[in-house]
Amino acid sequence: MTYCVGLMLDAGIVLLSDTRTNAGLDNISTYRKMFLFETPGDRVIGIMTAGSLSVTQTVMARLSDANEDLDSDKSILRAPTMLQVAEIVGGMLSDVTSEVSAKMERMSQKATASMIVAGQRKGGPMRMFLIYPEGNFIEATSDTPFLQIGEHKYGKPILDRVITPSTSLEDAEKAVLLSMDSTLRSNLSVGMPLDMAVIEAEGFCISRKRRIEPDDEAFATMSAAWSEALRDAFQQISSE
Amino acid sequence: MTYCVGLMLDAGIVLLSDTRTNAGLDNISTYRKMFLFETPGDRVIGIMTAGSLSVTQTVMARLSDANEDLDSDKSILRAPTMLQVAEIVGGMLSDVTSEVSAKMERMSQKATASMIVAGQRKGGPMRMFLIYPEGNFIEATSDTPFLQIGEHKYGKPILDRVITPSTSLEDAEKAVLLSMDSTLRSNLSVGMPLDMAVIEAEGFCISRKRRIEPDDEAFATMSAAWSEALRDAFQQISSE
Repeated sequence: MTYCVGLMLDAGIVLLSDTRTNAGLDNISTYRKMFLFETPGDRVIGIMTAGSLSVTQTVMARLSDANEDLDSDKSILRAPTMLQVAEIVGGMLSDVTSEVSAKMERMSQKATASMIVAGQRKGGPMRMFLIYPEGNFIEATSDTPFLQIGEHKYGKPILDRVITPSTSLEDAEKAVLLSMDSTLRSNLSVGMPLDMAVIEAEGFCISRKRRIEPDDEAFATMSAAWSEALRDAFQQISSE
Repeated sequence: MTYCVGLMLDAGIVLLSDTRTNAGLDNISTYRKMFLFETPGDRVIGIMTAGSLSVTQTVMARLSDANEDLDSDKSILRAPTMLQVAEIVGGMLSDVTSEVSAKMERMSQKATASMIVAGQRKGGPMRMFLIYPEGNFIEATSDTPFLQIGEHKYGKPILDRVITPSTSLEDAEKAVLLSMDSTLRSNLSVGMPLDMAVIEAEGFCISRKRRIEPDDEAFATMSAAWSEALRDAFQQISSE
């Protein structure tokens, strides 16, 4: 399982992903699920992946190949708009899912994946898309300024309550970490380390990047403070 | 969809269920999902249901019939232990699920249900069981003092954080209502009114029963206070 969340706010984009993958419960590994592409000053793109590793690795490899092949029309570093970036990623995801699924069908198994693609290109607005296994996608809006893939339910209530488009980037980082914290507590198949990236509006680069290891003191302190704050809040309110 | 939660604490049992049922998104109704049985001074049993209404209604009807038929060995009001109560309910659930599924198979559809059964019989301890569609069951323990059926994920983080076996009944009522509040906000197919019941330890009766209608002022006030307390708590803690 996986949990990835992306916020698209007036001030910028915040992305957070876990790194745990598992083939069954007894085969657990750590793989990066966040991939960052930038041509500083021109464009910045973050992609997060959930689902079958065999699908997502192949898609990411093909996207990298296309970036290096100057004849390719599938380069997300050269696509003229973020919409076309989403279409390229969606098309590759759809192709790879079909190829892998054709092989899996003999075993009556399925392999699917979904992705969050977010970023900004000079001259265009910030955009964030959730790409489904079939390659179609939806977009974050001011009404729905966050998108989630993977194990999304445990971490949604906190986002529903605190995130609006005008949330500051500082609060946004805190909110995604608390959303992840609730998910880590409730689903063992979501695990540390975590990858976080912040893309400030009109910055056209990765503004901040942070890997949070299992022994990260700041994260542990925040997690404990949040538990205590929740218990205090719980004691303060009346049920009558 | 449905959300039902039961807590088994040193001080007693707290049960809470919603009442929304839906056949598709465009056919929504209100049905009670909590059923209480008592022989005051001797025993008290609460049953909550999730899943196909055609299954749960038939199971509850058969349980009621068995209670009235003095020759029946399936009466939960006469079963000598709570374990046997769980076995009777599990057996009926399994039988009805099989019967209904046999009919549904022609349509390539399935109908399943799960239940929470909780209570106490004079001379025995309080017990609480989660009964699976196949009729087998698990039991709440001091390590895991709550059980949930239906849409359980949104409401689990608050329970994970505040519920221990020594939680007071007053706090327990507040916790299940807040757990339901998070679920109501995030899943439209869980809906008011709510049914809550409290069974105090060694009371052998329904100690308190409350139906919470959509216009319930106390619930609305608590929900708003919790949102505000969460936002305050969020502002107080630091992410660094």
